[in-house]
Amino acid sequence: MRVSLLGLGTVGAGVAQLLAANRADIARKVGCGIEVVRVLVRDPGRARATTLPPGVLTADPEVALGDPAVDAVVEVMGGIQPALALIVRALRAGRPVVTANKDVMSEHGRAVWQAAAEGGTDVFFEASVGGGIPIVRALKESLAANRVRRVAGILNGTTNFILTRMTQQGLSQQQALADARALGYAEADPSADLDGLDAARKLAILSSIAYNARCLPREVFRQGIREVAAADIAYAARLGAVIKLLAISELRPGGVSMRVHPTLLPRAHPLAAVHDAFNAIYVQGDAVGEAMFYGRGAGALPTASAVVGDLMQAARFLDRGGAGTGCTCFHERAFVPLDALVSRFYVRLRVMDRVGVLAQIAGVFGRSGVSILSVQQTPVFEGATAARAPEADPHGEECAELILTTHEVGEDRMAEAMEGLGRLAVVSGVGAVLRLAPEDL
Amino acid sequence: MRVSLLGLGTVGAGVAQLLAANRADIARKVGCGIEVVRVLVRDPGRARATTLPPGVLTADPEVALGDPAVDAVVEVMGGIQPALALIVRALRAGRPVVTANKDVMSEHGRAVWQAAAEGGTDVFFEASVGGGIPIVRALKESLAANRVRRVAGILNGTTNFILTRMTQQGLSQQQALADARALGYAEADPSADLDGLDAARKLAILSSIAYNARCLPREVFRQGIREVAAADIAYAARLGAVIKLLAISELRPGGVSMRVHPTLLPRAHPLAAVHDAFNAIYVQGDAVGEAMFYGRGAGALPTASAVVGDLMQAARFLDRGGAGTGCTCFHERAFVPLDALVSRFYVRLRVMDRVGVLAQIAGVFGRSGVSILSVQQTPVFEGATAARAPEADPHGEECAELILTTHEVGEDRMAEAMEGLGRLAVVSGVGAVLRLAPEDL
Repeated sequence: MRVSLLGLGTVGAGVAQLLAANRADIARKVGCGIEVVRVLVRDPGRARATTLPPGVLTADPEVALGDPAVDAVVEVMGGIQPALALIVRALRAGRPVVTANKDVMSEHGRAVWQAAAEGGTDVFFEASVGGGIPIVRALKESLAANRVRRVAGILNGTTNFILTRMTQQGLSQQQALADARALGYAEADPSADLDGLDAARKLAILSSIAYNARCLPREVFRQGIREVAAADIAYAARLGAVIKLLAISELRPGGVSMRVHPTLLPRAHPLAAVHDAFNAIYVQGDAVGEAMFYGRGAGALPTASAVVGDLMQAARFLDRGGAGTGCTCFHERAFVPLDALVSRFYVRLRVMDRVGVLAQIAGVFGRSGVSILSVQQTPVFEGATAARAPEADPHGEECAELILTTHEVGEDRMAEAMEGLGRLAVVSGVGAVLRLAPEDL
Repeated sequence: MRVSLLGLGTVGAGVAQLLAANRADIARKVGCGIEVVRVLVRDPGRARATTLPPGVLTADPEVALGDPAVDAVVEVMGGIQPALALIVRALRAGRPVVTANKDVMSEHGRAVWQAAAEGGTDVFFEASVGGGIPIVRALKESLAANRVRRVAGILNGTTNFILTRMTQQGLSQQQALADARALGYAEADPSADLDGLDAARKLAILSSIAYNARCLPREVFRQGIREVAAADIAYAARLGAVIKLLAISELRPGGVSMRVHPTLLPRAHPLAAVHDAFNAIYVQGDAVGEAMFYGRGAGALPTASAVVGDLMQAARFLDRGGAGTGCTCFHERAFVPLDALVSRFYVRLRVMDRVGVLAQIAGVFGRSGVSILSVQQTPVFEGATAARAPEADPHGEECAELILTTHEVGEDRMAEAMEGLGRLAVVSGVGAVLRLAPEDL
């Protein structure tokens, strides 16, 4: 099978390296060799450390895609354009495409699948979610007998690394982010990670497969990790929980709900043991019950593992006939906004250290219909104390921290309660408002 | 696709139930409906709670397999015969077979694949390992680009349940086994679970796929959990470890090594968080790095999830052409016995509480070339004390417990050292000899 590789960055170089390293076994497994015959790059003249034969590099998409000898196309450029246009062109010409592109697949899945249908071929995109973790094929094929009820994932390695450092070493978020940068886990502008956009795109892809309906990143409620402080992690530990940036989608009677937010997760949950830059996806289905998939969510070789795995599937179909599962978004499902859901909340408040403060706060919650589950006041324990010593407020009065958790309540009531708290003179600041994991996760 | 179902026990009934429950979505996903037209049972007259149409039950294999209208066969009888003969017959007749049978696949894989080749069809056996966990297809297809270096799994739910109860509730093994029986997790005769045979069979199947070479259960070194006492779990906790029955196989320069034994595993390892009757498989490959698959390793519906997932794959091939991956055991690899490996060991000894005991023991270890990593003597901490109070030996002398761990050492040297310890008058008994997890797991 002759392959045109679009892009030779980290992942592209990993793909070329892996195809070369395991060439013989790969050929025996699929029944034919897989050879890179074209590589589209910006600057073919630049020196590169690859074992690719000379002359395969080109800056011209016509050369990369126009060659009739090319059997399949691998897109590892990233970004929407020109990747989308090239993918569509290859598919329309009847060539199967393997892509690692979460932006294209989450935002323009419909256009991609339409091009595949026009060309009578297939798209493989295992590498677009969870790096080397084989979750796309698991959901599309192995677990296809299930009605999936929920997908909950740690889909962003950067934020999981930051939260892990904060948890294990008591670092501030700034310090942990600096570590992530030093180790190459965070980009110069980490906004897409910290604000949950990267996770939201991956969640939209997984949800589209899990519920057989097109789900879009803009339908995902997003709260990033920026407001999670070292103190919250320490207070969560006291509650028997760890804080993870979870991407959760659910199939509800009204449709599909999707959200990405920092989540207090019980320490014994399998997702709580996912540390550092690892990713994991937890699936709840009517037959399988619970299943979890864990692995490296990024990096040249883990991502190449998924890309080449897909390419081998495309090669099998080329060799033996048959086709992939194709687009499985055959249902139309409404999108359920966060407002329609209930959550349990965690709230960290800075309050005046006065008699009667709790009564006032409880009164506000009660009037908004928010039922309090637990209260702690400036607990004295390692980590929390160091990170959050009681401070004087601007007026010179002694402050304390108050940690509340709530029973399940709607977003509107919770918002009303938080507005009411903001009007209380005894509340000098809101440190964080986070959500607890669903009770049946 | 018309299916003949061989067996209507727990799993067979689950398959029928799942096909009925998700009928419409299953048909849309694969392009055709899947219908059970024959069911082979021992007694068709017995009352059953199924929604199967009347008249499909038969006790006659001729009827179940001879009907030319049958497109595919599902074998969920278990055991070697008559399952093997029926599978081979169906395959030779060109019908794809889906099986949940770990005994047949591990012991008679070669015969099964040969029959499939003769019939020009395929065998699907996702359900034979790890219940609903999609590990077979992951190894055969998604991770196929990797050279797999190691597979380490918790493959037996019964023993994991027992060890979890012992760990979390400080129960004895007898008490935990009684709980497992009461909850239906253990059979009347739990030997195949407790002695590691069930796990060994599953490991042989996974190893055959991972290393592309036929691996057999008899090549697996087995040590079951019978000698693991509550005290060992408590001592392991002191060492920062949990005890799990791990099934480990590795690709080494000399071939494939396979072993099932109780293993001291660092508490932070992802496999350490696998509790109760859950299974998990941890894979180390040259590209993917580490990946783990977690889920319910048994039960009617989790197993049915895997069976029907396979059946859907067979239906896709029937509908669109193409074929499965087929047999991938194209390498001949030697089997590396445990004697050729090195391990770190954990030893619990009962010793006389006398001056100089440790010097004598260290002397024996030293003369056998075993290097001691750590020593603890009758540590006083919750659980251990209760489970293992120092006892008087038959001669009335005070006894103590001594816990040693070793650096990596060969099996022969360790055996020699243990023999030497047995000859020491100050050693009144050996409680347990367990292995630590490989350092690079």
